[in-house]
Amino acid sequence: MEAKTCVGGGGTAIASRARDAIALDRPLPIGSVPTPALLVDAAALERNLERMAAHARAKDIALRPHTKTHKCPLLAKRQMDLGAVGVCAAKVSEAEVMIDAGIEAVLVTSPVVTQDKIARVVALARRSREFQIVVDNAAAASALADAARSAGVSVGVLIDLDPGMGRTGISPGAPALELLRHLARLPALRFEGLQCYAGNVMHVNGWEERRRRSLQALERAIETKTLMERAGFEVRAFTGGGTGTFDIDCDVAAFTDLQVGSYLFMDVGYRRCGGRGGSVFDDFEPSLFVLATAISKPQAGYITIDAGFKALSADSGVPDLYDTAGVVYKWGGDEHGILVLEAPSRPIELGDQVTLIVPHCDPTVNLYDVFHPHRDGVVEELWPITARGKSQ
Amino acid sequence: MEAKTCVGGGGTAIASRARDAIALDRPLPIGSVPTPALLVDAAALERNLERMAAHARAKDIALRPHTKTHKCPLLAKRQMDLGAVGVCAAKVSEAEVMIDAGIEAVLVTSPVVTQDKIARVVALARRSREFQIVVDNAAAASALADAARSAGVSVGVLIDLDPGMGRTGISPGAPALELLRHLARLPALRFEGLQCYAGNVMHVNGWEERRRRSLQALERAIETKTLMERAGFEVRAFTGGGTGTFDIDCDVAAFTDLQVGSYLFMDVGYRRCGGRGGSVFDDFEPSLFVLATAISKPQAGYITIDAGFKALSADSGVPDLYDTAGVVYKWGGDEHGILVLEAPSRPIELGDQVTLIVPHCDPTVNLYDVFHPHRDGVVEELWPITARGKSQ
Repeated sequence: MEAKTCVGGGGTAIASRARDAIALDRPLPIGSVPTPALLVDAAALERNLERMAAHARAKDIALRPHTKTHKCPLLAKRQMDLGAVGVCAAKVSEAEVMIDAGIEAVLVTSPVVTQDKIARVVALARRSREFQIVVDNAAAASALADAARSAGVSVGVLIDLDPGMGRTGISPGAPALELLRHLARLPALRFEGLQCYAGNVMHVNGWEERRRRSLQALERAIETKTLMERAGFEVRAFTGGGTGTFDIDCDVAAFTDLQVGSYLFMDVGYRRCGGRGGSVFDDFEPSLFVLATAISKPQAGYITIDAGFKALSADSGVPDLYDTAGVVYKWGGDEHGILVLEAPSRPIELGDQVTLIVPHCDPTVNLYDVFHPHRDGVVEELWPITARGKSQ
Repeated sequence: MEAKTCVGGGGTAIASRARDAIALDRPLPIGSVPTPALLVDAAALERNLERMAAHARAKDIALRPHTKTHKCPLLAKRQMDLGAVGVCAAKVSEAEVMIDAGIEAVLVTSPVVTQDKIARVVALARRSREFQIVVDNAAAASALADAARSAGVSVGVLIDLDPGMGRTGISPGAPALELLRHLARLPALRFEGLQCYAGNVMHVNGWEERRRRSLQALERAIETKTLMERAGFEVRAFTGGGTGTFDIDCDVAAFTDLQVGSYLFMDVGYRRCGGRGGSVFDDFEPSLFVLATAISKPQAGYITIDAGFKALSADSGVPDLYDTAGVVYKWGGDEHGILVLEAPSRPIELGDQVTLIVPHCDPTVNLYDVFHPHRDGVVEELWPITARGKSQ
């Protein structure tokens, strides 16, 4: 562990590439946090982390949480402490941050094909025997094997299966088996299992329909696992799933571990798609917020806050107000949002803060350098988002 | 000027808060740039900068370019070298970066109301006599004046007028004059002029319609200036306008300077809204691109690239391919995009790079730590986006 860095209340002097918590020189009440800021309810976050860990234990399935959501080694370590078998990283540069922070078991969930990325993958495999990456193409696998052999290291690989969404992965069945036979001829690569992530299913509206779609998307992947085993291969890991299917895919016997990400924060997108218990997906609590301030009131019935496209990712609709009913957010461009004061449950005046549930947690987290975790309304340290911007 | 920092080709060891160009230890051909990356055609950028400077000289109007677009002190300095009277910053923390870099004449274009921001504004006014900020509310102006008086500094202020879009600003006419009379009783504040920025007009489709809307939006602001002058006040500055109205607002006699931002990069949004010369706004060239790589091909007719919501801001639609016709981008989530290969003008295979014109330049720039400027296909240095994430 590095020594904590002490910074002033504004938190402007964030230590570059910090990995551990950054202590503030004095406790900062939420009301004094410079906005826009990424606020975390530390107690709610902890409850979410423990709830998912308990679920996995009860279902006898492992967790391999996705660091693309939080991009924070400190939170990845907490997930490991709670029993995760490893973490996922979306990209090589994200994996580098996690391995730099001492997390050994990192799976890169997206394939690489170019020489610069292959060289970085080989360097990571040299640093950690538990490092893994997915492959979905024979030529790219050969290139990786060549680089690994030259470097005298072996790289753990999983075959990525396309669940029909056409983003990454090879087709299940014969094409996947053919790729596996190819891998078997590349001794620098160790085949360790399968990945099948149906990202298009995670936000299907309504739990029953989501369940139907997820099981359907996984059907051919499960057959592929059997096909490989019948051909004499050992398929140790079968990884996939996400927060939207955490209580669905856990019952797929073939699955060894779940790549859950958003559960620790939640967001408007997940809340709206409904849970097993009803129309709101509330198995986990919102713990991540954008804190903003009302700064202008040019017209009656509206008030402008200091959070727009640079403070909230715009890919999944608008944020919900967490602390106030009867108010609707509309985008006010790069720097602002405009609150429509339809029937506000409390007055919002100039200078007042508002707390927003973010539309989509992952790309919103990626806009910030630090989390402001609070306990009972007081921020005592900052958590660096060390892998922010690491999309390479 | 700081000494240049030398870093490896991957550019991973970016000096935190660097302000000047970062030399690479060896020249990097575009083909070796780790993707996704923000690529700048340095020659096209320079032509855009010079074209706008020449336009302003010819029209005898000043430029006060907006740093919210590039967030890069190095580019702000180039704009100043080309004759800008100052720069704009959207937020206080962005202004801090520019003043840290030695740019004195910074106008903050968004009002502040809370004590933490007021204290930072007073600190900036102490450092630079040319620092200015807009005000749009009497109580907030009084709070700023109190803090300035206590600190023994005076702060230059402009009254922000709402052009009818209801984002920031006070209503033109009597309310604005009343605010000015209030300012006149606050000796710690120096009234220096008016701002009227019709952000809602910038992307109106078709130049004639945009012209009509812009002149209409400015009408009451121009009347307000006259009203103030008749009341005996000097209105030295009248600032506003943007790239969308650069060749419209320059003919508004009352305007002293234009807050142009996007012209140096351009983006899909601006190109599509048309220019004086036709249906494509091509007075300035696209000089900013996201460079991405094809990494997976699960289905025929499509290929997946490594740039999604974390590499391209999603507020304004999808990117256009710059170097290839007959291909359409569709979002593939946080980490990926899927290219629909309708009738590609060149083959795109795994490992190939593609160059994307960004949908909206400002919030996309805000996703990256550095620009990769190239000349004739070679990157020799990186330009730090020092104010990236500075939305406070």
